[in-house]
Amino acid sequence: MGPLAGAAFALRLAALTPASIDQQHIPTLLLNDPRIPDRTTARLYGGADPLPAMLRGVRMLNDAGARLIAVPCNTAHLWYEQLAAASECEVLHIIESVAQDLRRQGIARGRIGLMGTAATLSLGLYQQTLEKHGYTCIVPTEEEIDTLCMASIRAVKGNAVDEAFEPAAECVRRLGMRGADAVVLGCTELPLAVPHALRKSLGIALTDSIDALALAAISHYQAHTADADEALVAADETVAA
Amino acid sequence: MGPLAGAAFALRLAALTPASIDQQHIPTLLLNDPRIPDRTTARLYGGADPLPAMLRGVRMLNDAGARLIAVPCNTAHLWYEQLAAASECEVLHIIESVAQDLRRQGIARGRIGLMGTAATLSLGLYQQTLEKHGYTCIVPTEEEIDTLCMASIRAVKGNAVDEAFEPAAECVRRLGMRGADAVVLGCTELPLAVPHALRKSLGIALTDSIDALALAAISHYQAHTADADEALVAADETVAA
Repeated sequence: MGPLAGAAFALRLAALTPASIDQQHIPTLLLNDPRIPDRTTARLYGGADPLPAMLRGVRMLNDAGARLIAVPCNTAHLWYEQLAAASECEVLHIIESVAQDLRRQGIARGRIGLMGTAATLSLGLYQQTLEKHGYTCIVPTEEEIDTLCMASIRAVKGNAVDEAFEPAAECVRRLGMRGADAVVLGCTELPLAVPHALRKSLGIALTDSIDALALAAISHYQAHTADADEALVAADETVAA
Repeated sequence: MGPLAGAAFALRLAALTPASIDQQHIPTLLLNDPRIPDRTTARLYGGADPLPAMLRGVRMLNDAGARLIAVPCNTAHLWYEQLAAASECEVLHIIESVAQDLRRQGIARGRIGLMGTAATLSLGLYQQTLEKHGYTCIVPTEEEIDTLCMASIRAVKGNAVDEAFEPAAECVRRLGMRGADAVVLGCTELPLAVPHALRKSLGIALTDSIDALALAAISHYQAHTADADEALVAADETVAA
């Protein structure tokens, strides 16, 4: 997973929580382990399998008393069923959280442009869920995935965040020109590439998989936690892209 | 501790690490527990004691295999000796990290303006360490601590970050007018109140206790970890301000 993405998830979780003092915030445990083998390399090019390390992360968070697990890595959701089956507590699904966020923004149908890693897009992770909810998906070409999406993602992972904006913005523009009603920043590095302050300038609705997951975690916490003293949202960054 | 401050520490730790891919980053575990009783209230006004919860946090991080603990809360360092004594691994001292950061910036002596919580400043946490290193300290008045420092800190803790800049900036200006060569953002909410992009406009050297602690953690990791696979920096946000 991306260490910046994991930390950014923790930051947005705190920033989006309605709270006026520390003690109203959600207790969290962020396992941010960048040693997990790369998910895209594993799935597309036969690289080392990240699942054993991700399962160790789930176990560790369960043992620590987590009541909910959020995995701020889209590509890791290619292993969602195994992670959810291994966990004693609920594991949020980031793609479902993005679909919820689209509805929250009033986008209940239409054409959704997708951005993400090569593995997320070529294995249809978003397409399956969004089509089930009635959306049509617009996917960048293979060349665009490499030279725009992956270039931007690699820049964030390499701590060159300033270089990440332009390729990501170009991809958003092209998806808009092909008729997208909204674009999904469907890799948790992409919300870092396209900072909130610059989003309006792109002239199209965006859904941000970090914020969507954080909002889903906050809703879950508010709905399920009568006894706030015992709640713990654990962001299993063992797992993040 | 402040949940935003803890997450911001994780973010700056990742952003300041020299790394070009995920796997070169530092494995971390962030225990971000906002239920810990307020440190300033405990120390100055007889509020609930945060030490038992902070000690539970240290134990949890030790059990998880932490090789280094960083506590991104200045006020919590009023209990530093007890936390360090209870930990099986080294616990960084945030005030020493700030002193290192001053030297890193080429400020080896002179007058240092202090900003922080009422407890940090009135109990002399920075004064003791910085005077030992040969600096002279300039402390805001009690009224300034309340209406400028604490007002800014409370705004960050209450997710009103936009309202936090002006009181903090006013305090920086006043310390500068009284002859400070540099000002310490000596509460981990203050670096969020005064974003990096606006610091140059203040016209005085600043040292940021979040960045100083992150840089100290990265140096420690680089110096002590021949076997990177076993390293884990744990940010004990059980403890943060």
